Amino acid sequence: MKSTIRSFDLAHLAHVELLTPKPEQSLAFFVNVLGMTETTRQGDSVYLRGWDDYEHHSLKLTAAKTAGMGHFAYRASSPEALSHRVASIERAGFGCGWTDNHVGHGSAYAFKSPDGHDMEIYYETEWYTPPPELKPSLKNQAMRFPGRGANARRLDHLNLLTSDVEQLLDFMENVVGLRSTELIKLDNGKLAGAWVTCNNKTYDVAFTRDHYGAHGRFHHATWALDSKEEVLRAADIALEHDIKIETGPHKHAVQQTFFLYMLEPGGHRVEVAHASARLMLAPDWQPVVWTETERKKGQAWGLKTVESFHTYGTPPIEEYVGPRNS
Amino acid sequence: MKSTIRSFDLAHLAHVELLTPKPEQSLAFFVNVLGMTETTRQGDSVYLRGWDDYEHHSLKLTAAKTAGMGHFAYRASSPEALSHRVASIERAGFGCGWTDNHVGHGSAYAFKSPDGHDMEIYYETEWYTPPPELKPSLKNQAMRFPGRGANARRLDHLNLLTSDVEQLLDFMENVVGLRSTELIKLDNGKLAGAWVTCNNKTYDVAFTRDHYGAHGRFHHATWALDSKEEVLRAADIALEHDIKIETGPHKHAVQQTFFLYMLEPGGHRVEVAHASARLMLAPDWQPVVWTETERKKGQAWGLKTVESFHTYGTPPIEEYVGPRNS
Amino acid sequence: MKSTIRSFDLAHLAHVELLTPKPEQSLAFFVNVLGMTETTRQGDSVYLRGWDDYEHHSLKLTAAKTAGMGHFAYRASSPEALSHRVASIERAGFGCGWTDNHVGHGSAYAFKSPDGHDMEIYYETEWYTPPPELKPSLKNQAMRFPGRGANARRLDHLNLLTSDVEQLLDFMENVVGLRSTELIKLDNGKLAGAWVTCNNKTYDVAFTRDHYGAHGRFHHATWALDSKEEVLRAADIALEHDIKIETGPHKHAVQQTFFLYMLEPGGHRVEVAHASARLMLAPDWQPVVWTETERKKGQAWGLKTVESFHTYGTPPIEEYVGPRNS
Amino acid sequence: MKSTIRSFDLAHLAHVELLTPKPEQSLAFFVNVLGMTETTRQGDSVYLRGWDDYEHHSLKLTAAKTAGMGHFAYRASSPEALSHRVASIERAGFGCGWTDNHVGHGSAYAFKSPDGHDMEIYYETEWYTPPPELKPSLKNQAMRFPGRGANARRLDHLNLLTSDVEQLLDFMENVVGLRSTELIKLDNGKLAGAWVTCNNKTYDVAFTRDHYGAHGRFHHATWALDSKEEVLRAADIALEHDIKIETGPHKHAVQQTFFLYMLEPGGHRVEVAHASARLMLAPDWQPVVWTETERKKGQAWGLKTVESFHTYGTPPIEEYVGPRNS
Repeated sequence: MKSTIRSFDLAHLAHVELLTPKPEQSLAFFVNVLGMTETTRQGDSVYLRGWDDYEHHSLKLTAAKTAGMGHFAYRASSPEALSHRVASIERAGFGCGWTDNHVGHGSAYAFKSPDGHDMEIYYETEWYTPPPELKPSLKNQAMRFPGRGANARRLDHLNLLTSDVEQLLDFMENVVGLRSTELIKLDNGKLAGAWVTCNNKTYDVAFTRDHYGAHGRFHHATWALDSKEEVLRAADIALEHDIKIETGPHKHAVQQTFFLYMLEPGGHRVEVAHASARLMLAPDWQPVVWTETERKKGQAWGLKTVESFHTYGTPPIEEYVGPRNS
Repeated sequence: MKSTIRSFDLAHLAHVELLTPKPEQSLAFFVNVLGMTETTRQGDSVYLRGWDDYEHHSLKLTAAKTAGMGHFAYRASSPEALSHRVASIERAGFGCGWTDNHVGHGSAYAFKSPDGHDMEIYYETEWYTPPPELKPSLKNQAMRFPGRGANARRLDHLNLLTSDVEQLLDFMENVVGLRSTELIKLDNGKLAGAWVTCNNKTYDVAFTRDHYGAHGRFHHATWALDSKEEVLRAADIALEHDIKIETGPHKHAVQQTFFLYMLEPGGHRVEVAHASARLMLAPDWQPVVWTETERKKGQAWGLKTVESFHTYGTPPIEEYVGPRNS
Repeated sequence: MKSTIRSFDLAHLAHVELLTPKPEQSLAFFVNVLGMTETTRQGDSVYLRGWDDYEHHSLKLTAAKTAGMGHFAYRASSPEALSHRVASIERAGFGCGWTDNHVGHGSAYAFKSPDGHDMEIYYETEWYTPPPELKPSLKNQAMRFPGRGANARRLDHLNLLTSDVEQLLDFMENVVGLRSTELIKLDNGKLAGAWVTCNNKTYDVAFTRDHYGAHGRFHHATWALDSKEEVLRAADIALEHDIKIETGPHKHAVQQTFFLYMLEPGGHRVEVAHASARLMLAPDWQPVVWTETERKKGQAWGLKTVESFHTYGTPPIEEYVGPRNS
Repeated sequence: MKSTIRSFDLAHLAHVELLTPKPEQSLAFFVNVLGMTETTRQGDSVYLRGWDDYEHHSLKLTAAKTAGMGHFAYRASSPEALSHRVASIERAGFGCGWTDNHVGHGSAYAFKSPDGHDMEIYYETEWYTPPPELKPSLKNQAMRFPGRGANARRLDHLNLLTSDVEQLLDFMENVVGLRSTELIKLDNGKLAGAWVTCNNKTYDVAFTRDHYGAHGRFHHATWALDSKEEVLRAADIALEHDIKIETGPHKHAVQQTFFLYMLEPGGHRVEVAHASARLMLAPDWQPVVWTETERKKGQAWGLKTVESFHTYGTPPIEEYVGPRNS
C-alpha cells in the first residue's frame, strides 16, 4: 500500500533548463512573447522568471548545439523531506549525487529518470527580491506585473516523452513520490500517457509515449497565465511576433486545461495555459483513466489533435512540420 | 459611382426564420443552450428573442419537413427609406410584393435574391415590452438577463450559400443597398465569399460559394454573446447538452470574429460569436480582399477549417458528417 | 519550532452549514443565483453542491430561527492524520467528541474554536455519483456543468468574526494545524485579521476582529467561480434576482482575490470569487503582514471598503444596512 | 419633426486634442499604460493612435501651461455631408471657419459649442499605413497588436462638462446632427446629463452639468478595449505605474459600459472601457430617461459614484482630490 504522506516530500516543480541553438531569438521569445523577466546571466545561460514565481527563476535558458531539456528541478518541502526523498532515489539506484554552486538555489541532488531525463531536487533557495523598478504595488506579489506579452505568471508544468510510460510512472510514483491524477490506457492495456503531481495542482509533470520510441526526450514546458482571456491574447501576440502556433487556444479533455502551444525559435514547444479554478483537493483521488475510444473524440470541444503534437519533441528527430506549414 | 448614402436605407438585420423537422428539440436548443426566450407561438411557429433584441423576436422557428431558412428580414431606417428601397428592388425585378399580418412587425415587402433566398424589409415594428417577471433591473435593457445557457444577446448575422457570389454581391450592393467590407478572391479571379453590412457592424450578412453549386441554401445564423468568455462557456454548455460542436471556439481571420459553430437538432448550423470592440466606422472603407493563398493559412491562429464547413448547408444535400464523427 | 508537516493532516475545507430563517428563499438563492445543485434533503436541512465539489455537498442549509453558521468541516488527509489531529485537539481541550449518522460523510470529530465556532473533521466520505441527467460529458468532472446562475464550482473559503484574532490564530495554527499566509497588524501591535490554509490554496479560512467584540460569529462563505468574467456576470445575475450586492466586483489587496459579495435572503453574506492562477506553493512561505496604513489604501484598485463589511455578521447584531440602502 | 437622416452627416468621432502641462509624463502614460503608439511629432504636439484606429491618430497631445481639451473632431460621411453639416452650423451662428495644414487629415471646419468647446469636422483623411515593424499579421487590422499596457484599440467617446445641458443638447441634436440615446432628468425637470451619437455606437459624446457652472470644460476621454478582462488588467497596469485610479473597474448603469477611470499625469481623467456587444441599432430609438431617484442607486452593481467624478474637470478649478488621497 502506498502511503499518501510520501508525496509531500516535494513541494512543487521549481524550474526547467532548456537548451537552445538560437539563444538570442529564444530569449527574445521568452521576454517579449511570454512576458518573462531576466534575472541573471552566467556563462552560456540566462535565467528568467514569471512575475509571480517566488524563487530566483523558473527558466534557465542555455545556449547549445541542439534543442533539448537540460534538466528540471523540484523543490522539497523541508530539509528532512529532501533527505528522505534522496534516500529513496539512491536506494532505487537512480542517483547521480549532490551538486553545488547553483544560481538561485542551494545544494541539489541530481538523478536521472529511467528514461534518461535529468532531474534535481533541493530545498535551500533564494527568495526573489525585485530591484526598485520591478517592485510590485501589492506586497503579496513577487514582482511587478509586466503588462508585456503574455504576462507569464509562474511555471506550471512540464511534459516529457518516454519510451516506456509504465516504467516512468512507476519511477515517478514510487521513487520520486508523486501521485498520478489522470492516465490514458490503450485497448492493448498499455499506458499512453500519465499526469502526476506533488501538490494540489492537478499535475506538474506529464509524460506520453515517444512516437519514435526514443529515450529521455522532451515535449513541452508550460507557464500559467491568469485567465483564459490572457491565453487568447497570447495567441494574438504570438501571431504578431511571427511565432508558430501549433494548436489552440482550446481546452484539453484530459485535465481540462485551456491551452495554447507555440514553437519557440530554438525549437521547443512552449505552452501557456489556464486551469480555471480546478484543483485536486481530495487526498484519495483515484486516477481518471481515459480509454483509447474516449481519446479519439479529440480535445474537450472536439478539436482533433494535430499530428505533430504526437510526434515532435526535443531533441528533434524529425524536422518540425506544424499544421501551418502544410 | 456608388452613393454611400443608399446603404442607410436599411437600419439592421432584424430576424430569420428557420424551418426545422424537429421543432421540439430545436426549441429546447434555442432556449436551453442559446439561452433565448420564447415570446409567442402561432401556427407552426415559435418566436424567440435574445435578451437585448429590442424587437419582438429575432428568430421564427417553424416546423417543416426539411431544415432550411424560411426567410430573413431587414428593418428599414424610416418609412421613406423603406419606400425608396422597395422601389429599387421592384425596379430591378426581384420583388414579390407586400405582405401583412406578421407577428411582431408591420407590412413587409417580400423579395427574392437572384439565388433564391427569401428576404423581407419593413419599417413598422413592435418594440418588445417584457412581462413583469422578465423586466430588467436596468431600464436601458430590453429584457432581464437570463443567466441560462449561452445568454444569446441579439441576432448578429447570417451566412448564406450561393451558386454565384458575384451575382449575389451585385444584388446586395446595388439592389439591397449594402456595403461589402471583406471579400475572398480566388486565383482565377472569381469571388468565393463576401461580407456585407448596412451599418457599423462589420457584417450582417455573409455568403460563400455553394460547394454543390446549389441555389438559395443557408449556411448559418449567428447570435452575439457579450464576451469571448461567454463563447468559451457556450462550448461547455453545448458539450453538456450533447450538441455537436462543428468547430471552435477560435478566431476567424476574416472579420476576426471569435466563433463557435454548433449543429442544432433540426440540422442548422448555429454560431455564437463575439466581435470584441471591432466596428466599421470609416465611411469610405474599402473591402479587404483575401487571396486564395492567404486563406490557406486557416483561421486567425492557424486552425484548419473543417471540411463540413465548406460543404454542409440547409436544406442539406449530403448528410452532415462533422469532425467528431470521424 | 512549528513543524510544517503537521499542516498536512487536513486535506481541505469540506463544507459549511448555514442556518437560515428563510429556508425557501435561501434555497432559491443558492440554486438560481449561485447555480448550486440540491443533492438531498433530510429533516430541516437541504444539502447542496457546486458542480465540481467531489463530495456529497459543500453546503448544508438548515432552517432555523436566526441566521448563523451551524458548523464547518475539514476533511483529513488520511485516517492516521485524522487520529493525529483529533489527539492534538483533545490535548488542547477543545474537543466535543465523535458524532455519527452524517449525510454524505463518516464519523466526524466535533470541536469548538476558542471563540465558539463549531467545527468538525472527518476522513471517510461519500464521493458524489451524479444521477444520469447530471452526468458530465468529461469524466474528470464531478457533475454536469449547470449553465445556470453563477455556476459555483466548489467551496472556496470561509470568513469568521472573532473577539480575539491572536487567540483564534494560535488555535488554528497550533491546534488545528493550519498555516497563516497573510495577516493585518494594527499600529497598536494587535492583529486585525488572519488568513490560514491547510493546502496550496492561499487560504481556506479567514478571520477578522468582530466590530462588536462578540463571540463565534460568521462573516461570509465563498464559492469559487471559474473566471473573473463569471464573477462579473454573477453581479448581473444578482441584480436581476433583486439580490443585494454589498460590494464588488473588485479585487482584494489582501490575497488579491477577485470578489463579489451578496446578501442572501436568509441574511448571510455570500461571496463568489476567482483567484486567477495564484497558489501558495512555497513550503516556507512567510506570512505577508499588512500595516494599518497599507490597509487604508482600500482594495487593490482603490475601492474603499464599505462600512457594513466591517460590522455586519451572522447571527446579526444590528440590522443589515448595506451601501445601496442609503 | 426631426429627420433621422441628418445624423448620418457625421460618420464618427475622430480625435481629441489634450493639452498637458507635463508632456513627457503624459506621453509615457499614453504609450506605456494605455498602450498607444506615436505616429508623428510636430511643434509642441505628439500624435498617437490605438492599434485599430484607421486614421493617422486619435489623440493629439499638446504641451501647454494648463490641462484642458484643445479641440475634438468628427469625420463626416462624405464631402456632401460635410458641406451640408457646415451649412447647418454656419446658419446657426456657431462657425469659426475653415482651417488647413492639419497633420493626418484635410481641411476642417472649426466651430464652437454654445458652452465654448472647440470642435471640428472634416472629410478628407489620411488612412494610416504602418511602417514594416508595425504591420499586422491579419490584413483587416490597422496596425500590429502591441501587447503593451492596456492595448487601447480605438477612441471610443468623450465626456464634456457644460454649464447648460439643455442648451448643449439642443446644439448637438439640431446643429451638429447627433441623436440622444440616454438622458438624466432631475426632479426639477432640468437635464443633468446627455449621451449622444452619430452612429450605431450608443454614444460618442456625453456631457454632464459642470458642478461649478463653468463653461467649456472637459470631463474625460475614453479609448475602447477589447474585453472586460482587458479593463481589469488595465487597472493592474495602472497600479504598477503609480497612476491614480479614480473609480472602477465597474459597470455604469447609464449605457452599461464597463469602465475604469484614471488620472493621467497631465491632469486629465482618462477612461478605458468595454461595451460588450451593445449597439444602438434601432433607427427610432427613444432616449432612455433616468430619474434622480434611479441615479441615486449608484452604478449598475451599486457602486457609489465618487465625489471627484461629479466635480473635477479640465482645466481644473479645484485641485484633484481623488478617493485614494483621503
